[in-house]
Amino acid sequence: MSKTAAIIGGGVIGGGWAARFLLNGWDVRVYDPDPEAERKIGEVLGNARRSLPGLTDVALPGEGALSFHGSIAEAVQGAAWIQESVPERLEIKHATFAEVQAACAPDAVIGSSTSGFKPSELQQGAARPGQIMVAHPFNPVYLLPLIELVPGDVGDAALIERAKATLASLGMHALHLKKEIDAHVADRFLEAVWREALWLVKDGIATTEEIDDAIRYGFGIRWAQMGLFETYRVAGGEAGMKHFMAQFGPALKWPWTKLMDVPEFTDELVDLIAGQSDAQSGHHSIRELERIRDNNLVAMMRSLKAQNWGAGALIAAQEAALKQGGPMGAVAADVPADRPVVTAQRVVPLDWTDYNGHMTESRYLHAFADATDRFMEMIGCDAEYISSGGSYFTAETHIRHLDEVHAGAQIEITTQVILGAGKKMHLWHEMREGDRLLATGEHFLLHVSLETRKPSVPGPAVEAALVRIAEGHAALPKPEGAGAAIRQPG
Amino acid sequence: MSKTAAIIGGGVIGGGWAARFLLNGWDVRVYDPDPEAERKIGEVLGNARRSLPGLTDVALPGEGALSFHGSIAEAVQGAAWIQESVPERLEIKHATFAEVQAACAPDAVIGSSTSGFKPSELQQGAARPGQIMVAHPFNPVYLLPLIELVPGDVGDAALIERAKATLASLGMHALHLKKEIDAHVADRFLEAVWREALWLVKDGIATTEEIDDAIRYGFGIRWAQMGLFETYRVAGGEAGMKHFMAQFGPALKWPWTKLMDVPEFTDELVDLIAGQSDAQSGHHSIRELERIRDNNLVAMMRSLKAQNWGAGALIAAQEAALKQGGPMGAVAADVPADRPVVTAQRVVPLDWTDYNGHMTESRYLHAFADATDRFMEMIGCDAEYISSGGSYFTAETHIRHLDEVHAGAQIEITTQVILGAGKKMHLWHEMREGDRLLATGEHFLLHVSLETRKPSVPGPAVEAALVRIAEGHAALPKPEGAGAAIRQPG
Repeated sequence: MSKTAAIIGGGVIGGGWAARFLLNGWDVRVYDPDPEAERKIGEVLGNARRSLPGLTDVALPGEGALSFHGSIAEAVQGAAWIQESVPERLEIKHATFAEVQAACAPDAVIGSSTSGFKPSELQQGAARPGQIMVAHPFNPVYLLPLIELVPGDVGDAALIERAKATLASLGMHALHLKKEIDAHVADRFLEAVWREALWLVKDGIATTEEIDDAIRYGFGIRWAQMGLFETYRVAGGEAGMKHFMAQFGPALKWPWTKLMDVPEFTDELVDLIAGQSDAQSGHHSIRELERIRDNNLVAMMRSLKAQNWGAGALIAAQEAALKQGGPMGAVAADVPADRPVVTAQRVVPLDWTDYNGHMTESRYLHAFADATDRFMEMIGCDAEYISSGGSYFTAETHIRHLDEVHAGAQIEITTQVILGAGKKMHLWHEMREGDRLLATGEHFLLHVSLETRKPSVPGPAVEAALVRIAEGHAALPKPEGAGAAIRQPG
Repeated sequence: MSKTAAIIGGGVIGGGWAARFLLNGWDVRVYDPDPEAERKIGEVLGNARRSLPGLTDVALPGEGALSFHGSIAEAVQGAAWIQESVPERLEIKHATFAEVQAACAPDAVIGSSTSGFKPSELQQGAARPGQIMVAHPFNPVYLLPLIELVPGDVGDAALIERAKATLASLGMHALHLKKEIDAHVADRFLEAVWREALWLVKDGIATTEEIDDAIRYGFGIRWAQMGLFETYRVAGGEAGMKHFMAQFGPALKWPWTKLMDVPEFTDELVDLIAGQSDAQSGHHSIRELERIRDNNLVAMMRSLKAQNWGAGALIAAQEAALKQGGPMGAVAADVPADRPVVTAQRVVPLDWTDYNGHMTESRYLHAFADATDRFMEMIGCDAEYISSGGSYFTAETHIRHLDEVHAGAQIEITTQVILGAGKKMHLWHEMREGDRLLATGEHFLLHVSLETRKPSVPGPAVEAALVRIAEGHAALPKPEGAGAAIRQPG
């Protein structure tokens, strides 16, 4: 099959599909009568080009060609995938499919982005109903992998398999629903939560912001990795899913939501769910699932910390408080000059390790670079100073990995100034767990102007603070290993 | 106030509270009549010690002391915070509070972990009702930051402020709800989704696994960072929240969930929500929010990729397919020996950059280390070989940062073998964006036995593949800069 997709209807969703195909090397042919379509798709593409290509650690194929067309018939020429994202009105969908099927290849996939319509509704009156299937994406389509694929009863089996394979090649996941229902699956949950949320705002229980916080600081992070049932399986503990259901079943009759149209809580339903949960997760023990969950939560929360957002911003705030009062809280005149400076006291986090629990190679530099940042803060090269236009950039780094360290180990880094004068800063870091030397890091930095990106002299207060420590440290013995090249092969 | 907490009722929730306090330097006194309590809390503590201390980049205070007590009166002695996590039966809660208040300090916080009860219900008949408040946590309590703090109408203002400050010092976030309601806020959403999910399973629409996938590959990741309303604000685009609501309002009357007890969709409700959304998110433009969202999604999905889980496992699968056929797919005999080997072709991802969009220092090593891994795979030191007990460990690294690079840049790494013989492997990586040399990495590795963690000779196939490339590369010019120490201060 060709790698050509036709996008019928642009906007945020159609544009997201266009981006997903284009950045995965497909040619994309767009039909949208909106005179603003090209601009709107361009904006989505801009966001997609910024975020999608780096999602994988391997480059995507080169971008395909994007073209805009004046008719559906022209747009679908040669297309192996045709994606409909027109407004959510059935008569518009039907008219669109008629035009598409009059001109497209009979073995092309015709996917519909509909949030609500069932495939049987879309297929009414179609020339080839089996060619049309729901392929419901989630915004932003260029990043989120989920596609609800609902072919209905008349779907062509070979076409469905090809649709799944195509979506996988785009980095997406086809959730193939065998039975159709209004709003498919995911949007039914969104609608239920939306309805309950409207009640809470209307009744003055919580604001939109409080509701968002209630989600993103708690179950939202859990759901991002395990969803609903696997999360509850873990919560049920060794007693398992049946125990969990027995405990929470009675709540179905309580006013825990305003949405009271509940199913009957029968033994059959409990058995059905417990059995499906076993099939889904039974190959992991609860203890394993707990650890998988915790690894995921730590990794996601720390990734949000780097963005200073959501649960990650809370961790950053706690850290700022923890620094106060400890040796890492020292500033300028307080920093000892008669001994190496403590620039890190931290525990190796779960997301810094390989599958065996050893700290990965690049995290040694991550820890040393953080220590350098902390030392810079100590001499007054802090966020405020940097925003005024100067900073230190690392020019060279020499790391010696001397011993291994595991997740959970408390490590300390001390820093000795080898040279601190003018634009130059030459640091020597030693990383230890207790008395055990794990690694050394030798770093040569230059002060730069952030405007010109060229070397420049630091501000007088920073230079004075650095020189004071450098002069004190000049009396210390030169560290063993400093100034050496990588050992020459013997 | 003392840093002493009393935990009344162990189990998964009480144990999680105990861990949160203990690992943040508090002494913890536990009362739980269950003879298994010590073991159960020990298991939760084990999980917490494994995951929480590394969550921050600064070490937590030293652990406090954990003690078990035979009575509530003894456990609450000297406690500034008393947390009740007994079974969810009101008469048990009331009896517990009576014992607690007979013995505890009158200015201690008494928090209840109740999922469902309102504070006014808990406070019935209490000696000092204003001392008792709902402090509802989320499992795992040692990692998730959300606490729904619901003091009710009689709550003591000073005590509430102290409770909030204490929770913040533990890295948690008090969501202070001013109006009480059954099941507070978050669990109302969980209950709504649970009810809808039971319908879907019962009606045979989807299995538990399909439902979990529908959540974790789509809206779950969105909600983990922005929740419900801010996500919809972004989806509404420049037209804003009112536009979004006008578009989706009608769905309230449709059977998009079985839960049909919906509020009336009035102009007042639309205005209320749009106004709250403006107050919450109006300081960011929609374009800014899109970029924040995308940064967060990329960071979280890539963090899950490192765990090979959920949406991250999908990215890993796409990567494996992308490697096939490209230069990075070369193995053993196919690897060219007459020129440096292409070991990376990738785009700098959003989560590798600082707030200015420049690739951060440690990610240069991250990219070089990935290139080393890829080179190892090429000579047959792949996952299967490693599982048989041998691998290469990096002993020394020397990086020269020659130029800056931004998120979105496509970078390529080529690798020249300086020495490959016996246990030794000496590699020279060059990182480029187009023709622009960004950095060089010189790496000295030793083959090790993964059992003894000592140097050992590689397997014959790996050694032969390495030697073939090393002999070919011996004819190439020695790279400029190889074998040098960090420049000596002049």
